[in-house]
Amino acid sequence: MFDLNEKTGFVNTILESLLPVSKRQGSIEDAMRYSVLNGGKRLRPIMLIEAFRLFCADTETEKMIALPFAAAIEFIHSYSLVHDDLPAMDDDTYRRGQLTTHKKFGHAMGVLTGDALLNYAFETMSGAAVKVSGIRNVEIKAVLLDRCVRAISEISSQTGYLGMIYGQVRDCSEETDAAPDEVIKTDELKTSCLFEAALVAGAILGGADPEQIDRIKKAGYHIGIAFQLRDDILDETATFEELGKDIGSDEKNGKKTFLALMGREKTVSRLHTEMDKARETINDLPGEHGFFEDLCTMISSN
Amino acid sequence: MFDLNEKTGFVNTILESLLPVSKRQGSIEDAMRYSVLNGGKRLRPIMLIEAFRLFCADTETEKMIALPFAAAIEFIHSYSLVHDDLPAMDDDTYRRGQLTTHKKFGHAMGVLTGDALLNYAFETMSGAAVKVSGIRNVEIKAVLLDRCVRAISEISSQTGYLGMIYGQVRDCSEETDAAPDEVIKTDELKTSCLFEAALVAGAILGGADPEQIDRIKKAGYHIGIAFQLRDDILDETATFEELGKDIGSDEKNGKKTFLALMGREKTVSRLHTEMDKARETINDLPGEHGFFEDLCTMISSN
Repeated sequence: MFDLNEKTGFVNTILESLLPVSKRQGSIEDAMRYSVLNGGKRLRPIMLIEAFRLFCADTETEKMIALPFAAAIEFIHSYSLVHDDLPAMDDDTYRRGQLTTHKKFGHAMGVLTGDALLNYAFETMSGAAVKVSGIRNVEIKAVLLDRCVRAISEISSQTGYLGMIYGQVRDCSEETDAAPDEVIKTDELKTSCLFEAALVAGAILGGADPEQIDRIKKAGYHIGIAFQLRDDILDETATFEELGKDIGSDEKNGKKTFLALMGREKTVSRLHTEMDKARETINDLPGEHGFFEDLCTMISSN
Repeated sequence: MFDLNEKTGFVNTILESLLPVSKRQGSIEDAMRYSVLNGGKRLRPIMLIEAFRLFCADTETEKMIALPFAAAIEFIHSYSLVHDDLPAMDDDTYRRGQLTTHKKFGHAMGVLTGDALLNYAFETMSGAAVKVSGIRNVEIKAVLLDRCVRAISEISSQTGYLGMIYGQVRDCSEETDAAPDEVIKTDELKTSCLFEAALVAGAILGGADPEQIDRIKKAGYHIGIAFQLRDDILDETATFEELGKDIGSDEKNGKKTFLALMGREKTVSRLHTEMDKARETINDLPGEHGFFEDLCTMISSN
């Protein structure tokens, strides 16, 4: 099994170095750092980097494009959490064991910090692409710029009004008598979209061909659904100390999860089915994919 | 004098065609269209297109990159208005004569529609860049991709935590005894940043050199300040019918404008000084810049 802490630490170093710094307490930079540097496991950026490494072993290219894009995926994930926690949405007080951003910095700053992080994700990605523009060899420059713009396009469509944001819209408006398939669809949008974006962007940046990109996208879909089902189980069963956030938040907000509709046994069984499908898809990918097999095992087991 | 209505109509056609459509009332697509297609004058996209035309006369390139980037600038402007109107910020009920987005669609949708529009701006720009990637000639492709990523980078930094969003942060937290220079600084961030972004992105996409880009950036700065001073005057003197939004909103929210601090006479005089500086900078640009001279006259006079 891979060392999750080591990979998380690696991503944290990148996030630390890319996030803006200001010594002024209560500044927007302060709120951005607070919202991102809060002990997350960094699964999405780790997945982007590992997907990149399946297709490209060049560490210079990794540093130039894969690492900034990995950080950008985490900035987007963080913004989505900051906005989901707002009074207009889930109205949560704690996240990962600390006050939510709007509870700590005020309501207006909660909105603005989310905006700043989403915007900063695109500053980071386009900034990396501008560095690629400095490459002298026109062939290499064209190839890498092409990968950068396709990766930005892929990430932005997965996180947009047809992707993650649509999941959030459904989540806010879902009827309490929604069918399990509808709930799974919302899970897909809320969670799988960003997992897919991470894997597909990593693969594009690494130079994967269209068929390989399709395959890794499918893996992202199944991993995302499984991850969300696991999250629903934790929301019901874990303690505040284990989870670091308000427990039973779904039930409080009248949200129908797959778990609430189908019961624990069927949820665990579905989680394993999704993971099996993810494993099948991953097995056909090139390179050393032990990481992804381990990831599936990890998500299924805790 | 140029025909503003004709230019506005041209941009509206682009916005109409690029915004997603859904027949479902109350959908996120519906809310996005509602928030953008509301009778704005489209100054920022018009400025981007006119800046592009100073440096490039090729209509194919204009269609491929300048028009989608112009639309993206307006999506960003619209998102910033939707979020500024939220209860956590200015808590406004009307905007351009219609209910603000959160009043019409609900608080959660207000947050999410803003997010969706910001995200969609980057979907639109990166989508245009992906089309450029389809160009066969590797030299041309590399040149245009380079311009696209530099324009995305320029826009995203002007709208980010050091630009427009920082202006909003200052606006929310400004002391009532702020000095006039501090208020001008906030105006610069809130308004000039997006004007600068529009002009600079247009110039970059059109192939301007670094010196020309610096010059047009300076023009955007002065036009933006003048525009904000004019807006402050209108906020104090116009009627609801003329303005289409709540009047005296600045005073209600305890916001210190330059006008409130310095009086009407000094504000008008400052507005003219800024416009003169803008005109000076513009005169040194290449090509036919009648549009920009007219724009300065227009902003100074009403």
